Amino acid sequence: MSSHTEQSAVTVLGLGPMGRSLAGAFLDAGLRTTVWNRTPGRDRELVERGAVGARSAEAAVAASGLTVVCVVNYDAADAILRRGEVADVLKGRTVVNLTADTPGRARDTAAWAAEHGIRYLDGAIMTPTTTIGTPAAVFIHSGSQELYREHRPVLDALGGTHTHLGEEIGRAAAYDIALLDIFWTAMAGYVHALAVARAEGVTARELAPFAKGIGAILPPIFEQSAEEVDSGRFSGEGNPMTSAVSSMAHIVHTSETHGIDAGVMRAAEGMARRAIGQGHGAEGFTRIAEILGRR
Amino acid sequence: MSSHTEQSAVTVLGLGPMGRSLAGAFLDAGLRTTVWNRTPGRDRELVERGAVGARSAEAAVAASGLTVVCVVNYDAADAILRRGEVADVLKGRTVVNLTADTPGRARDTAAWAAEHGIRYLDGAIMTPTTTIGTPAAVFIHSGSQELYREHRPVLDALGGTHTHLGEEIGRAAAYDIALLDIFWTAMAGYVHALAVARAEGVTARELAPFAKGIGAILPPIFEQSAEEVDSGRFSGEGNPMTSAVSSMAHIVHTSETHGIDAGVMRAAEGMARRAIGQGHGAEGFTRIAEILGRR
Repeated sequence: MSSHTEQSAVTVLGLGPMGRSLAGAFLDAGLRTTVWNRTPGRDRELVERGAVGARSAEAAVAASGLTVVCVVNYDAADAILRRGEVADVLKGRTVVNLTADTPGRARDTAAWAAEHGIRYLDGAIMTPTTTIGTPAAVFIHSGSQELYREHRPVLDALGGTHTHLGEEIGRAAAYDIALLDIFWTAMAGYVHALAVARAEGVTARELAPFAKGIGAILPPIFEQSAEEVDSGRFSGEGNPMTSAVSSMAHIVHTSETHGIDAGVMRAAEGMARRAIGQGHGAEGFTRIAEILGRR
Repeated sequence: MSSHTEQSAVTVLGLGPMGRSLAGAFLDAGLRTTVWNRTPGRDRELVERGAVGARSAEAAVAASGLTVVCVVNYDAADAILRRGEVADVLKGRTVVNLTADTPGRARDTAAWAAEHGIRYLDGAIMTPTTTIGTPAAVFIHSGSQELYREHRPVLDALGGTHTHLGEEIGRAAAYDIALLDIFWTAMAGYVHALAVARAEGVTARELAPFAKGIGAILPPIFEQSAEEVDSGRFSGEGNPMTSAVSSMAHIVHTSETHGIDAGVMRAAEGMARRAIGQGHGAEGFTRIAEILGRR
């Protein structure tokens, strides 16, 4: 019975928009949910919905066998977890850290947790707050498979799909970084394209149906090119790197003609030109993935 | 009858992969198709399929009332079209230039065409060679609406969707540049993400299902943010610019820890940091579209 209580109790540290969504999903699933935030007052709505508002981080983690952390970055997570009072209470308990940061920080925190007898899993949330508790949510996890299996029933209360990527604790953060790299670079291209379009008298709404079309061709290209990147065969048939660079030069020129900074595209063009300089002009653009990674 | 003959005849200048696809689609549609390429020998397969292989550019344009040009850029197009012998024959005929370049070059060529009594439309092809002649092809056009309507039946032989974007001749190139900006920036992010993932022991195939997921969320984001960009309201609710910059810093750090150049993301982060410095930290990332365009 005590084991059952512990299984169905969870603590959430960090009540920003994402932390509040996580706590809300746990409450909706009927879990005994304890919440805490460094800045007080963020727990009001959750407490009204049945959450226990803890007075301190140590009281919060003492209330459950599983603590989920979701704060702005690992500096903030460390400032909470690595205080002696909190670390002492966490001994023998589990922390699932859903805070976004680098794989290196995840590994560092895992090492600290191991030293302090704290059971530790790292994870990342790949979808917006509005998806939490719905089938659209996407979570990735890494660390001990056994520990993950033990807490999977509670994590499932967050909805969506959960994928355990491996025992290596930095793996979820590595995926997160790579996926955010795709996302934010694409967004940088999008806002730049809108600025250039506007300078040419084209509104965002006019461009939108075509922009959506470009977005829609990316997923199949990502899938098809994964094979050639892993195998090291980079056929440029129909679309060699030289052709990409020609387009990129047109984009830079048009942008700068309008006085619009083209630094992102200049950097991208530079990557492609270096690849051409190394003899890869007839190969596909994805060859750059291999070239960038050379030591 | 002579008018009918002219209507169903078309000349294609430029027989690279795209030019050959265009000529092939015209042939498949039963049009009398004349082809020419600066470097000889590229017309063999098309001639076997029934095309007329012209001996010179002037002979090629003399064979049809409509000439479609698709070469590497406008330098190449000018080298063909602006020779006196060719320009003389083109007088009173129509050129549809599907060559990719900048809006400025399209305007310059339109001005030259007007001086020489040549009827001129500019256009761009937004989809790969394999889509030509199929419903998946996407063509955009600009210039005289009346001239476009006159040649629309022949252009329809290329399959897909054709959109006339306006009378201003540079409009197709402006859309093309903006859409290529989105595409190539996203691809730059993708190859960089693959390099970082690989350095972290994650293969492209392992990342692919998640990368596809990121690609899939872009079209709705493009659509939703178009409204706020055009209206000048940039709500950062749930995802402020400061949060984007935090992710970007993690990406740069992880990349450079592995000795991987992060120039593209550094440039993107710089755009966002300048926007924050100008007081837009609490607003959404798309505010950058407006800031970049300020003169």
